[in-house]
Amino acid sequence: MENFIYHTPTKVFFGKKEEQRIGSILASFKASKVLLHYGKGSVIRSGLLDQIKALIKEAKISFVELGGVEANPKLSLVEQGVQLVQTEGIDFILAIGGGSVLDSAKAIAVGACVSHSPWLFSIKEKFPTQAIPVGVILTLAASGSDMSDSCVITNEQTKEKRGFNSPLNRPQFAILNPELTYSVSAYQTACGIVDIMMHTLERFISTSGPSEPTDSMSIGLLKAVYQAGKKVMKDPNNYEARATLLWANSLSHNGLTSCGRSFVMSVHQLEHEVSGMFDTVAHGAGLAVLWPAWAKFAYPYAKNQFARLSYEVLEIQPTNSLDHDILKGIEAMKNFFKEIGMPTSLKELNITQEEDLKKLAFNVTFNHTRVIQDVIQIDEEMALKIFTEAQ
Amino acid sequence: MENFIYHTPTKVFFGKKEEQRIGSILASFKASKVLLHYGKGSVIRSGLLDQIKALIKEAKISFVELGGVEANPKLSLVEQGVQLVQTEGIDFILAIGGGSVLDSAKAIAVGACVSHSPWLFSIKEKFPTQAIPVGVILTLAASGSDMSDSCVITNEQTKEKRGFNSPLNRPQFAILNPELTYSVSAYQTACGIVDIMMHTLERFISTSGPSEPTDSMSIGLLKAVYQAGKKVMKDPNNYEARATLLWANSLSHNGLTSCGRSFVMSVHQLEHEVSGMFDTVAHGAGLAVLWPAWAKFAYPYAKNQFARLSYEVLEIQPTNSLDHDILKGIEAMKNFFKEIGMPTSLKELNITQEEDLKKLAFNVTFNHTRVIQDVIQIDEEMALKIFTEAQ
Repeated sequence: MENFIYHTPTKVFFGKKEEQRIGSILASFKASKVLLHYGKGSVIRSGLLDQIKALIKEAKISFVELGGVEANPKLSLVEQGVQLVQTEGIDFILAIGGGSVLDSAKAIAVGACVSHSPWLFSIKEKFPTQAIPVGVILTLAASGSDMSDSCVITNEQTKEKRGFNSPLNRPQFAILNPELTYSVSAYQTACGIVDIMMHTLERFISTSGPSEPTDSMSIGLLKAVYQAGKKVMKDPNNYEARATLLWANSLSHNGLTSCGRSFVMSVHQLEHEVSGMFDTVAHGAGLAVLWPAWAKFAYPYAKNQFARLSYEVLEIQPTNSLDHDILKGIEAMKNFFKEIGMPTSLKELNITQEEDLKKLAFNVTFNHTRVIQDVIQIDEEMALKIFTEAQ
Repeated sequence: MENFIYHTPTKVFFGKKEEQRIGSILASFKASKVLLHYGKGSVIRSGLLDQIKALIKEAKISFVELGGVEANPKLSLVEQGVQLVQTEGIDFILAIGGGSVLDSAKAIAVGACVSHSPWLFSIKEKFPTQAIPVGVILTLAASGSDMSDSCVITNEQTKEKRGFNSPLNRPQFAILNPELTYSVSAYQTACGIVDIMMHTLERFISTSGPSEPTDSMSIGLLKAVYQAGKKVMKDPNNYEARATLLWANSLSHNGLTSCGRSFVMSVHQLEHEVSGMFDTVAHGAGLAVLWPAWAKFAYPYAKNQFARLSYEVLEIQPTNSLDHDILKGIEAMKNFFKEIGMPTSLKELNITQEEDLKKLAFNVTFNHTRVIQDVIQIDEEMALKIFTEAQ
């Protein structure tokens, strides 16, 4: 077990109707002028936004609105938000939506405290030292951004998608009502399931040695998500299954599942290039395509972890060949992704040109300035092999 | 899954040599005058106390000392601590030791902010609204007090042991170095293993319905502790096993293993009477004796949870009788406790008089003002049945 720091100060309000307490919660965090930040779709259609606005008004807290966040949240909107916070004297940001809205809010929160572009944080040229506090009403179980220290933004000019981590990125509070996720489409639900599993799996399968109880708890989390995932696709209004996904969404990315482990999240990094270059690709769908391809190259170097995944999560019956059982596990994951409606090849995501695969593989190297050091080393050549396998 | 609030703001520094950062950590929490609070045994003998004092001096932070905390920490010492904090203008309390030292520090922290006896918090006549911040260097994996909101104190005059919960009881930081637990005696190590398992198990086996991923993660934690527990008894300097117990100690009692569940911790409450009345009884030893006795009465009302314990933690092979498998599991737990050197009967704790059992059963009812409402209701009659079964 490696040394670690664990610090998850986000206060979570979990369960039915918790969002109705938003007035008193904001007051307890001393919010006096709030930026309401949201997307453009369901949060408006469902009436949630109007309901929250009414509750905040009732609590006599003033607010300003900035909607329009898209999937793979864009730098240009973040920059608008920064200006709004600075000119309006805003002291609290409330994000209502999924991971994109949260990450957009986080980028505004640190961006509003500096005079340079927030993009400099994303490319790690600058490091934040201050942030406007952020609170969250989550409507999508996926990114785990509600408790995490990460923030991923897309620069639409350079078509780069980049993430940075900072303790300042952790929200002050997160309101998680599973019922608010009932209306999420089957496709987006499935994308979320993949993302949640990958957040834990990409920590579990790493170069570090075993770390208990982290590993056994991670296996427990993966098993719960795997089973709830199957249930929720058949019965989208199943409270218990939606609640399992929503709480697992937070725990899989708040640091708990990496205690004692170092991790790199190679597949996430490969995927960021894909959805950065092809804006129509949902992050979870990209992960579903890439993980099995990556796993085929990676498993010889992390057989113990792949074996636990096979036996303890995916219920593969042991034979006398460990390699066989691991490959069966990778196949079972792929089948699970297919079962919940995810693509299993880049072709299905309309990425068919060999030139594009080459461009992606080059982009992974950040202009030949890095090789991803993980269970397997990923340089341009290995990246191309994985993208080709995923074709 | 029931609604819940999850808030664990304690910052954890986990791993080898982390205590050597104490100077900069205290400075980062703006401590200027510290009460060093500790016991009377190993922390002095091992040289840890001297080392910490030197590091704090080096950081130019002043301090006052109060040692002498005993197992089942006493109200009289807490009251001394309160006076010291008030007269010396102390703004931070650093507890160095195990759960007893931590709980004593927590009681001082809230007691120093009021003019009445801190015992009024323990018997829930008053509720704290303020506390001096507390930090922890932990030397024993057991109580989970380092991240928990609980504080248990014994009133030596009335021979009552009472706990109270408050968010103010959560320490600001916890330094957890598994190597500092190498020197813990085999008996105290075993007591800790039981306490850790019970903190998770008494949340897992409750009246609430299933709550995932909490349940599967709890099973993972129990499994890890069960396996590390066996290892550490044979090899006390096994870093991985000590680290597993230490991190499980924190996670089992910080709230994580009860998310979505309500819980009562009946066996803890029964045990508090035993170690409250018989000061020589270690808390973990009392739990080891009482849990199997309680389980025999309780299992018919929580068969699903008992079954998961049997199959997934204790590796009981399924037969066609669920009751048989559950009873095998309870027996396996008892055997495990015996294997690690715990007593399995009240007799072994020198509690043999029927009059004492009756007195204990009466005390459980708090002068006939309560019945414990859990998987089974525990009134005076049921308490006596359990104590008699445990004889």
